[in-house]
Amino acid sequence: MISAQSVLEGDRLALSRLLTAIERGSADGQEALNALFKHTGQAQLIGVTGAPGTGKSSLVNQLALHYRHPAAGDPLRVAIVAVDPSSPFTGGAVMGDRIRMRDLAGDEGVFIRSMASRGSLGGLAPTTASMVQAMDAAGYDIIFIETVGAGQAEVEIAKLADSTLVVEAPGLGDDVQAIKAGILEIADILVLNKADRPGVDSAERALKGMLQLGHPVEHVFMHHGKKAQVATHDTVGDLWLPPIQRTVSTEGQGIAELAEAIARHRAYLRESGEWERRDRARLETELIALLGVELMARWQAATPDEVYNEVLTQLLDRQISPSQAVNALTRQGEYSA
Amino acid sequence: MISAQSVLEGDRLALSRLLTAIERGSADGQEALNALFKHTGQAQLIGVTGAPGTGKSSLVNQLALHYRHPAAGDPLRVAIVAVDPSSPFTGGAVMGDRIRMRDLAGDEGVFIRSMASRGSLGGLAPTTASMVQAMDAAGYDIIFIETVGAGQAEVEIAKLADSTLVVEAPGLGDDVQAIKAGILEIADILVLNKADRPGVDSAERALKGMLQLGHPVEHVFMHHGKKAQVATHDTVGDLWLPPIQRTVSTEGQGIAELAEAIARHRAYLRESGEWERRDRARLETELIALLGVELMARWQAATPDEVYNEVLTQLLDRQISPSQAVNALTRQGEYSA
Repeated sequence: MISAQSVLEGDRLALSRLLTAIERGSADGQEALNALFKHTGQAQLIGVTGAPGTGKSSLVNQLALHYRHPAAGDPLRVAIVAVDPSSPFTGGAVMGDRIRMRDLAGDEGVFIRSMASRGSLGGLAPTTASMVQAMDAAGYDIIFIETVGAGQAEVEIAKLADSTLVVEAPGLGDDVQAIKAGILEIADILVLNKADRPGVDSAERALKGMLQLGHPVEHVFMHHGKKAQVATHDTVGDLWLPPIQRTVSTEGQGIAELAEAIARHRAYLRESGEWERRDRARLETELIALLGVELMARWQAATPDEVYNEVLTQLLDRQISPSQAVNALTRQGEYSA
Repeated sequence: MISAQSVLEGDRLALSRLLTAIERGSADGQEALNALFKHTGQAQLIGVTGAPGTGKSSLVNQLALHYRHPAAGDPLRVAIVAVDPSSPFTGGAVMGDRIRMRDLAGDEGVFIRSMASRGSLGGLAPTTASMVQAMDAAGYDIIFIETVGAGQAEVEIAKLADSTLVVEAPGLGDDVQAIKAGILEIADILVLNKADRPGVDSAERALKGMLQLGHPVEHVFMHHGKKAQVATHDTVGDLWLPPIQRTVSTEGQGIAELAEAIARHRAYLRESGEWERRDRARLETELIALLGVELMARWQAATPDEVYNEVLTQLLDRQISPSQAVNALTRQGEYSA
């Protein structure tokens, strides 16, 4: 049994059990989540995505340390969910955990969970959404949602976040441009990590050029990881302009400035009403995804195997097309949901 | 109107129109596809995937030229569908076309079509499947399905192919390993392109190591792009062992040997019964995807907007969880499909 009350009270073991139940799609996990749901909506959700080799895990690590040891104020409680949609193996995610553990081990204010593409019933994005909700109800102030790669799955997972960081690094190959164009649309903040590498200036110029293509204003603010050059506003009118923040995460360089950019984005979200709009869009997206899973399950329960197999045989024999097969399987009155 | 007969007779304009209709999800496109479906199942479908920067487009280009100008026998008719799931823009795909056009322009035996993620109703993989079926019915002998990246979408699109080529290149960054592990599972043939670059030997060793992890045999055959070293069999018992083929596609090096490996894989598919198994799996996957789209459409048609909006409001106010909202929206008897 999973105790929703224990999760609310910050019991780490209870949260771990709940997350496992969510991944497995078990009924008592769902029951606990139903009870916890009214306590969600408090955490700041930070999506972190980018191509392999950009140093995302190390960056999340450093940001977590920053929030745990702030220059002023109370430390924030930090949770990390690392999703690897590209790999059917858990290897990458598990390795990432081990690296993180060195710096964050033994800190009760940090909770880390990895998730591979297998073992998620009902789709990766809805399962991640549920896991984030559990962490949110458990009282974590900051929740990182970290994904590898830059495909459709990453874009969907990025939509779960309030603020999305897209991480780039200099010198990752010649036609990375194509991928960048795709994920720039989802970036609230661009991080140019490994900024001590050669090619960082031209990488920043390229990013700036692509940002200008995507935004109907001439001026894009640049942040060079130097305090004096950090702009104090990233907005023009109602528009948020994704800033470019240089970091060297292995050295901790630019991390405080990046955290400031995240704080500015949070303030922008709150002031513009975008926070509430994103929360609503997120919940509706999750609803539609779960609805699709449920409709399919109900159809399966209502359709005799013989009916399905007969239609499938006609399809495989190319007597009917896939579209005609769907028509045969959903004929009016043939099943009732 | 789209004439299925014209598509069958090889009319390129009719095929172009049909592909556009399929992308738009129009009814007359579906009607033509229904009529054409019994003529499908003839082409050899070759999936080509891999990370950005590996030179996939150039490789497909060279293979197409090879099939158009064979050393012996008749030239084959070649179609290429280039899918870019990672980018919401068409920029990358269009640019790829332009590069290809230089070599293949004016050849009536080659048909090229790009597809971006937008404008495909019902999901990228089902739409790609329909487009491939149209090309198949139009009499193309070889159909390349080219995708960028290595995420879940690429894996799904790769499942549409009879033979899947995973393209790698030396020196694409330090943790490309994680991605490789994920897509190695779908590789029938591994192509090590840009083999004139430094680091090619260590890249091949790494690939070999990962292949050995994934296959329960000690010996993995290596192909070094030199005729004398090409193994004449890639199977142990009933098992196909993905060969590693070095190429320098910009120079045309290794292309003939790669085509031989593809021919061997085709023979293996035919002899082992795997050809039919893959065809069946492909059609059933497409059926399930289209069924999901249809079930959602029927649910939408049967559910009054007020009912949906009321449940959504309760969800957004966090009175009910997403799972409870789904239950409310699919309550027995509330709609009949």
